[in-house]
Amino acid sequence: MSSYREYMASYLPRLEKYMQEVIAPPAPDVAQHYEMMAYHLGWRDERLQPAQAKAGKRVRPLLCLLACEAVGGTVEAALPAAVSIELLHNFSLIHDDIEDNSPTRRGRPTIWRLWGIPQAINVGDAMFSLARRVLHDLSAWHRPERVLEAFRLFDNVCVALTEGQHLDMRFEETLEVSEAAYLRMIEGKTAALIATSVEMGALLGDATAPVRQAYATFGRYLGLAFQIEDDILGIWGEEVKTGKSTASDILTKKKTWPVIYGLHHPQVGPRLRELYAGPPFTEKDVPYIQALLEEAGARQAAEALATQFHRQALAALDETSITSPAHMALRDLAHALVGREA
Amino acid sequence: MSSYREYMASYLPRLEKYMQEVIAPPAPDVAQHYEMMAYHLGWRDERLQPAQAKAGKRVRPLLCLLACEAVGGTVEAALPAAVSIELLHNFSLIHDDIEDNSPTRRGRPTIWRLWGIPQAINVGDAMFSLARRVLHDLSAWHRPERVLEAFRLFDNVCVALTEGQHLDMRFEETLEVSEAAYLRMIEGKTAALIATSVEMGALLGDATAPVRQAYATFGRYLGLAFQIEDDILGIWGEEVKTGKSTASDILTKKKTWPVIYGLHHPQVGPRLRELYAGPPFTEKDVPYIQALLEEAGARQAAEALATQFHRQALAALDETSITSPAHMALRDLAHALVGREA
Repeated sequence: MSSYREYMASYLPRLEKYMQEVIAPPAPDVAQHYEMMAYHLGWRDERLQPAQAKAGKRVRPLLCLLACEAVGGTVEAALPAAVSIELLHNFSLIHDDIEDNSPTRRGRPTIWRLWGIPQAINVGDAMFSLARRVLHDLSAWHRPERVLEAFRLFDNVCVALTEGQHLDMRFEETLEVSEAAYLRMIEGKTAALIATSVEMGALLGDATAPVRQAYATFGRYLGLAFQIEDDILGIWGEEVKTGKSTASDILTKKKTWPVIYGLHHPQVGPRLRELYAGPPFTEKDVPYIQALLEEAGARQAAEALATQFHRQALAALDETSITSPAHMALRDLAHALVGREA
Repeated sequence: MSSYREYMASYLPRLEKYMQEVIAPPAPDVAQHYEMMAYHLGWRDERLQPAQAKAGKRVRPLLCLLACEAVGGTVEAALPAAVSIELLHNFSLIHDDIEDNSPTRRGRPTIWRLWGIPQAINVGDAMFSLARRVLHDLSAWHRPERVLEAFRLFDNVCVALTEGQHLDMRFEETLEVSEAAYLRMIEGKTAALIATSVEMGALLGDATAPVRQAYATFGRYLGLAFQIEDDILGIWGEEVKTGKSTASDILTKKKTWPVIYGLHHPQVGPRLRELYAGPPFTEKDVPYIQALLEEAGARQAAEALATQFHRQALAALDETSITSPAHMALRDLAHALVGREA
């Protein structure tokens, strides 16, 4: 099999079961603490009763497990890391939702909206702590040196995530963000964790150093392509099938890649700057902003950039000359994620 | 030497230097991110210029380093862990300050007051991440199995901290907190990290399992004694030398151990419950609340409990039959911290 969906169907139940074990309350007096985490992960409702809500797509653990199998490892040997990475990602979402003042996620109220900012900060800290603790389970499968190497990958990406988030928040306050600075921000905020997901799988599947490096590069460019695609959807989302609200990034004046491109355009830039420095946008401003950005060539440029990153991702994969079915499924997943042929 | 102060004088410069290296900005674009951490640690002022502000007492790293030397280890072999523990403690303070809505710490505005809640959450997350990453430096001194064991101690205490904080926030909303529940809360919020500080030092000094366990028990009871003492100071603080504002815990209606004891008193309890359920206290209510708590015997009972914990702490130390100067300095530090003879 080389469709990622078949692997997904096989991995997902094991992943969810493992995650649920990690999030199980260890004592009744702290049950609510753990159940708020379960709420975020889709397993509890607002009254903390068992539920099956729309959860995340579990892309990162899928990448980790696929990479492990692709290089010849067993799924079991990477499962604790896959769980860890998904919990780390969700910790960052819980805190991001507070930091971005987001009232909903996946169609449900965010933790801070339901239980307040103090509990939400602490619930995020707990999920962060559990994400790291579950990595110790790797010791059942790997020698200590390798477990430490997995911890090192994990700890490095945590620092990168906070640096990316710092830049993201700082960029909100200014129109003077260069394309290079923006790319550095999304390297930390998005690409680093996707790179780590793939690299971690390769490490735990006992890949050679060059393969591990190539897989990390694949993940990095995949993450960059994914983010630029997401930026395009945030502005012209109505034209493609997406769960996101239409042109949501315009209404929030989010300075994503196409906007930054537009702001630097010699003709269109000055007008865009006025608008982005002016009063908040409403629904009726959306078509005009979209048109200005199109006029600046921002959409075409963003699509070209996403395609370039996608190609670089696939080139890194091909460089390994691995041809296992799981390796092909990684290729397949890359196509599904960035939604274009390269 | 067996005064902890002499050890402190020797450890502190090395500790501060190491921490400063960990917190050094890796690149100009994220300098502010790291400088906010440096602000919290006392090395920068509100404009992020170099400064020397009143810092924390560095009690936890001191305990860690003393424990390592006490069992025969070298300071260098425990220094990364001491740095890690102090950063972990400060991460928790940065988030606690947001969660408790505290405008100042150590006489200066808190991070969230200066740079907003979103940046403060992220700065805390970064310090948390750096606290873990520095533990990898242990690999220069210890075999991988032991480094992993240090990681395990660290990761377990992180989970305990969030559980304690969860209970602390939940207890704010109710008058129905038992003494047992309160003790469980401070086990997580205070005692667990102090226990880990001492145990980590013993582990890295190559202590036997029984010694390591005895040291952990020492730390745990020391933490409990320390917290109960702190609770007493929070209510009757004007009678002892302290940097805390007088009776601050009364004005915020914090339900510390003496208050919980008073709320359960058959005669005084009902009156206290009315008052704690009623309108906010002002300065003029303080003497009456203090008197009611004294009448309930809360102060005497709290002092007896702190003395009991202190004795249990010292008993655990004595059980090891270690007599090194650094071991004696641990004893000395315990006396200094809980401020009473047992």
